[in-house]
Formats: sequence, C-alpha cells, structure tokens
Amino acid sequence: MRSHDLIVIGAGTGNTLVDDRFAHLDVAVVAEGPFGGTCLNAGCIPSKMLAATADVADAVREAHRHDIDAELRRVRWTDARDRVFGRLDTTAKEGEEGRRASENVTVYRGRARFTGERRIGVETASGPVELCADRIVVAAGGRPVVPPVVADSGLPYETSDTVMRLDSPPERLVVLGGGYIAAELAHVFHSVGSHVTVVEQQDRLLAQQDEAVSEAFTDIVRDQWDLRLGRELTEVSGEPGDLRLTLDDGTELRADTLLVAVGRRPNGDRLGLDAAGIDAEDGRITVDEHLRTSAEGVWALGDVSTAVPLKHVANREAEVVAHNLLHPGDLRTMSYGAVPAAVFTRPQIAQVGLTEREAREQGLDYVTATHRYEDVAYGWALEETRGFCKVLVERGTGRLLGAHLLGPQAATLVQPLVVAQTFGITARDLAERPLWIHPALTEVVENALRELDSR
Amino acid sequence: MRSHDLIVIGAGTGNTLVDDRFAHLDVAVVAEGPFGGTCLNAGCIPSKMLAATADVADAVREAHRHDIDAELRRVRWTDARDRVFGRLDTTAKEGEEGRRASENVTVYRGRARFTGERRIGVETASGPVELCADRIVVAAGGRPVVPPVVADSGLPYETSDTVMRLDSPPERLVVLGGGYIAAELAHVFHSVGSHVTVVEQQDRLLAQQDEAVSEAFTDIVRDQWDLRLGRELTEVSGEPGDLRLTLDDGTELRADTLLVAVGRRPNGDRLGLDAAGIDAEDGRITVDEHLRTSAEGVWALGDVSTAVPLKHVANREAEVVAHNLLHPGDLRTMSYGAVPAAVFTRPQIAQVGLTEREAREQGLDYVTATHRYEDVAYGWALEETRGFCKVLVERGTGRLLGAHLLGPQAATLVQPLVVAQTFGITARDLAERPLWIHPALTEVVENALRELDSR
Repeated sequence: MRSHDLIVIGAGTGNTLVDDRFAHLDVAVVAEGPFGGTCLNAGCIPSKMLAATADVADAVREAHRHDIDAELRRVRWTDARDRVFGRLDTTAKEGEEGRRASENVTVYRGRARFTGERRIGVETASGPVELCADRIVVAAGGRPVVPPVVADSGLPYETSDTVMRLDSPPERLVVLGGGYIAAELAHVFHSVGSHVTVVEQQDRLLAQQDEAVSEAFTDIVRDQWDLRLGRELTEVSGEPGDLRLTLDDGTELRADTLLVAVGRRPNGDRLGLDAAGIDAEDGRITVDEHLRTSAEGVWALGDVSTAVPLKHVANREAEVVAHNLLHPGDLRTMSYGAVPAAVFTRPQIAQVGLTEREAREQGLDYVTATHRYEDVAYGWALEETRGFCKVLVERGTGRLLGAHLLGPQAATLVQPLVVAQTFGITARDLAERPLWIHPALTEVVENALRELDSR
Repeated sequence: MRSHDLIVIGAGTGNTLVDDRFAHLDVAVVAEGPFGGTCLNAGCIPSKMLAATADVADAVREAHRHDIDAELRRVRWTDARDRVFGRLDTTAKEGEEGRRASENVTVYRGRARFTGERRIGVETASGPVELCADRIVVAAGGRPVVPPVVADSGLPYETSDTVMRLDSPPERLVVLGGGYIAAELAHVFHSVGSHVTVVEQQDRLLAQQDEAVSEAFTDIVRDQWDLRLGRELTEVSGEPGDLRLTLDDGTELRADTLLVAVGRRPNGDRLGLDAAGIDAEDGRITVDEHLRTSAEGVWALGDVSTAVPLKHVANREAEVVAHNLLHPGDLRTMSYGAVPAAVFTRPQIAQVGLTEREAREQGLDYVTATHRYEDVAYGWALEETRGFCKVLVERGTGRLLGAHLLGPQAATLVQPLVVAQTFGITARDLAERPLWIHPALTEVVENALRELDSR
C-alpha cells in the first residue's frame, strides 16, 4: 500500500485543483480517462468547436438574408473533426505529460475503487495497486445514460463520447433525447448534411428551459429536424448501418446511426463507495455546503456529486475544495445562487436563475418582460427575427430572479445578468445606471429590463 | 411670434425626450433633418447594418478556416442599401408622422436660429416663423468636418451622410481619416468589393483607442486596405469619377470616390447662439453638470454640446434633461464615468474607461493584463487568432480603470465590465464571484481579470 498526502480521483476538473499551493504535499492523481476529462475530450469543448463550425456553414446558407449570393459547397467533416480533435487530443496528452512532470504528483492510470476508509485500489495496466491518503477528492465524473431498449438490442449506437469522432456524418441520424446535448449534436450533424430525426418523450425540446425558450426553439428547429415528440423508443432492430427504430405509436424509423443522448449519470456507482462510508444517491455522492462527503477527509466535486453538472460549476467547486483542503479552519461554502448555462445551438440559448415555472412553483410574486432582437437596432443589422430576452423580477424588490435568452450571442449577452444577480443589483439599476452601447446587441437585455420597470 | 411652453431644437435625441410626461405642455419640435437624427439616418444604425452585412460576406470568405468550402459570388450592394434605408427611411417618416400626431406638439421644419433670449426663428418652406418659450432644449447635433483642401477643390466628395446611399460601391475608394467612422466605412466598402485606400495623418488607425488595440487593428487591416499613414492630403484634382489625390510626400492616388471622414463638429456655430447669450466653444455649447447652458432656461444635449458624441450618451443626457425640466428643484447630474464605445469593424472593437495612456497621464498606479481569444476554448471554436481583452486596474484598490477588447462580439463582451465599473465592483470580485459560462467567449474577460489578480 502506497500512502499519499492527497489522492485526487479524476483527470478532469479534479486534476486541475492540484496547483502550486499543493507543492508541499505528496499527491496522487488517479486517471481513468484522458486528461481534461469529459469537457475537453468529449463534452463542452469539442461540441462547441463543432457547433461553431456548423454556425459558419449555416451563416453561408443564410447569407442571402443579407443580400449576399453565396454557395455552400461542402463541409469537410473529416478535416473539421481532425482540426478539433487534433488540438484537443494534443492538449489532453500534454496535460498528462505536464502532470507526470510535477515533482510532487504521481499519476496512476486506471479505474479507482474504494477498498476502505480513505483507501482505494486502482486497476492499472501493470496490475492492481492500493493507495491510501489522509485526504481524498473524488471527481470521477459521469457518463451517458443508455436505456435498456438500446443497450440490450446488441446493435451499435453512439453517445456524445463517440459520435463527434465518426469518420463521416451519418446520412440518416436518429437522436434519442431532446435535452441540450441532443440539441447541440443535432445542430452539428444537421448542419454538416445529415438528415436528423429527434425522438423525445416530452412534447417539446429543451424542456428544462423556460417555457418561452423551449417552445420557440422547438418551433424553429421543426423546419430543420424531423421531430418525434411525446414518443418513446420501444425497439431497436435491423442491422448495423441500417437500424430500424420502432416508436411507441408503431412508427418505424430507419437510421444509419443512433445517437443516444437522453442524459448523463454520475459515476458514483462504480467507485465502491460503501466500503469507504461515502453516502450517495443513485450514484451521486452526497456533499455538504463545503463539499465534504459523509466520510471524514473525503471531498467530492463535479459531475460525480454536483447538483449542477456544468464545467464552470465544477471549476468553482474545485476552487472551493482546494481552499477547504488548505484551510480546514476556514471552510468556504459553494453557492448555486446564480448559475448560468448556455446551449450552443442555432439559435443559441442562455439562461441564469429561475425559469418562470420555477418562480411560480416557489410561490414568488414576480413580473416578466420580453424584448425581441428584432426590436433593437443591432437585431435589424443581424436580420434576426426570432430571438428574444425574457427577464423575471420579484415584484416590489426588483430582485432579478431569472433571465432567458434565445438568439445570436446569447451565451455572451447573459453575463451582465449573471453579474447583477450575483451582486444583488436590481433590474432597474442594471438597466438605468450603466450605459449600454448603442447600437450593440446588449440593448436587447437593457430593453427587456426597462420594460419590466414600466409595470 | 408663437409662444410655446417648451421648444426642442432637433429631430434626433432631443425629440425623443418629449414623452407622456410632457403631455401637459405646449411643445414645439424644430426639425431640420429627418426624424431619428444622425444615428438613424446617417450614423450608428445604417453603418452597423451595412457592417453586419460586410461581416457576413467576410464570414463566407473565411469559411475555409472552419473546413468549409464556400464561394462568395456577389454582395448585392443595391439590394443591401435598399434593405437598410428602406427600413430606416420608413422609420424616420413614421417618427415624424407620430410626432405630428401628438396633440400637444407642433413640428416646425427648418433650421432654427436664436434671435434673442429664449427666442428663435425658423426658416420653414412656407416662410420664416418666430417662436419663443420659457424653456428651450438645444439638440441640434453635429456634422462631418470637410477640410478646405477638399471643400475648396470644387470636386465631388462623399461623407458619412451620403456615402452609404451610393448606387454602387466605388471601384477605387479613398478614405480620408483613420478614426472609427473611417474604419467602419472602410470595412463596409472593402467587404463589398471596393479597393480601399486610407489616408491618415497619424501613424496608426483608431489612434484614440488604447495603443494595444490601435496597433493590432492597424496591423490586421494593413493586409486588406492600402494604408497611407502619417500622410496628409495636399491637393485634390482630376475630374469627377477620376480624382487625383496628392499627398504630402508627393504620392498621387487615383480614386472614383473620396470619402471624407476626418471627424465631426457640433452645429452650435449655425444657431446664432450669441443672440441668446449661450456660451459655446468652437461651436460646442458649454453646459454644466445638469446640462444647463449659460442662458437661463436653455438646456443642451447630444452632439451639439456633449464631451462624448455617442448616441447612448446622448440618450442618457436626454433622460437627465427631461428629468431636470420636470423637476427643477431636484436636478440630476450627468455622469461620464464609465462610458463604453464600440467600433463595428472586423475585428470588432470595444472599450470602457481609460486607455493605458490616459491612466499614465493621470499619474495612476495601475497594472494591466491581456488575455487572448486563442487562449480560451470558445476562441478555439471560432478559430480566432488575433483578438484579446486588455484590462487596467488600479494597484492596491483593484478598481477597474479601463477595458479594451478587439475581436468577435467585443461590443457585447464589454458590458459586464461596464456594469462592474459603474457599480464599483473590483476586478477580483468580478472575476471570482459570478460564474462565467464554460466555454463561452466571456471567458476571455474572466481570464484577463484573473491574470491581473496574480500580480
């Protein structure tokens, strides 16, 4: 048994918390997957890089809206894929090499499993090793959920882990799921030429978004994707490359490729948590506000434990855990008060805070206002007719409860709203005290806030 | 002589301050130009609409950077122009009709001239009229400066008032001037196919920007435009459609069209201010912090008086003047503390607060940090290699002094920095307290702020 001062399980966000402040400690990093984790290798970053490529292709297709005659000849998928993963795989490799070069850090490659209190086993390529440490950080991530109807069919399927690395875009792609991962990948593949069908149990896409966003988005993409909403997949048959997908209304879809994107689950179920006295629910490790697990000296962060599985949340959690490891007498608290998120589809989507339904369910007394891109000058410049910014504010106090954007630059436009919500700046003060450039796209936010004020 | 309660001189921002709060007053609006003023008819809005069109054309040209084969066949200039001005001219016309329909407002068409204290004459199409009022708001705007070497040549030239309405883009366009109007229009015409030469006295373009931005921008456009920096125009000769432009080094340029974009001047020199006891300097009306002129009952705002001739500043000034007209016992003060501005070129530029030179000249003890787009994941997605965010912060206090962006979405990205500067949020708090979506372009701002913190 090798003893360390600190063990970090996870090559993603967990690994990044080990910086110079930990130079005095003997640290182990246990890495099952490539360095950089899901985000760098199969998640946020490659999907955004491919989505941005899709955006360019769509911009060429829509150039006529700006009185420009342009022809889209070809999206060179393989070149784009190699550009993306050539960069990312190199970054992952360099990340591992850099980590291995750290004098105080030992890297173990393999899946970790708790074998006792603050004790783990790792199945490495050269055999099993046992490690122990006073402090352990569990940042073992999550993985795509694959429902039995697919998994048990014995037929091939893709997930977000694999689909972005295909050699060519499928001619007929069926996407199972209607959440943000499904939507971003549908955008990518539709744009590079696949015929995309989306099968979703709910009656609209992105059902966790504010209703206004979810409904508008569903309406917009209905023209581009073959939507099968309110439908379940009941059988997968056929053969590799020519799948037959039967839905609960008896419809049969044909597909070259099935992409399963119905959600992700935390990897806690694979970690032998019971042996270490670490509580979890459905594989999600339970943590307190300081990100401590139920086991003394064991911390958790990121997709394996968080309530909000997003990379920027994991990064913040890593800051909190790093601080708390180093300052046990002055523990920081993780706040989930104003968490923004974006969906990099076309149109782009971003949000912060509550949806209107959440505000209603919480019994809040609120008002909303919506301003459309087409009602600000830079929206005219973009010939944008569909986008909007919707804001929710508590009546009386003017406290910003939530904001929802659909349209170009949504992920950038949301940030002043995140800042305001974080610092408790009221909607009225946010609209009226700073200047907002005219005519910049930010006016859609300013004007949504100003409309609230008029009620 | 017709007596009103309030006279507003100007169909631009001045006109917009007359809202429902003034329904009890008998108001005159004196309009020389089209309703909506410079911004709507010849300034911010048409230039942004044409710049966005140019951006789309350039995006098609650069699609190969995303492994997309696309061909730009033609930018249909006339269609784009008609799309832009078809919308804007209609908006201006409807603005005038709407104003004429206001029960308490009389519109006088023509140029106003003070004939005494709170008394003006207007040369209307149906003859001169004389008006007086207790209160007068002067919002008579500004106009392009045309240097004598051009004006006295007798040869035709364009300004921002006229060039965007040309029937076809010039084959050979010479732009005189290197400020933001010159740069935006050079971007537009280069993108639609003109050969663009820029003649500028200073040794770099956008010389009022932070040096880092100005230098980077000049370097980038050097490949696209024929730059004649540090040069003056000494003679205009030739004939209409085939101009010969002689520079101070003896070089002769040939051009179909000369665009004069060396700056704008306030229209105060045309208003007979002396007759009314209104102080001005070089045609710019002098105002105090409440936007009162030296003459009792006379206020001024916008390009005719402001220190910062930008539409969003004029709008804020109009809010201040409107409040002050209605609440003479509770005067508001106009603040110029955190004024953002953007240049809609490609790359786009935005700024708020001080340039580094200004910080140096003010003797401030500051630190700077710069983060490049290519060092954040969404910069990878955009294949953006040139952009950056530079921030200036006061040492010790962490007070944000200024921020400068060059790159995609700069005009949107600057807004959280404007909010922080307005509310006195320190650079460190802005970086560390709100979440910043990963991987959104906003990370370039977050990371510039975080780098500051490390010093």
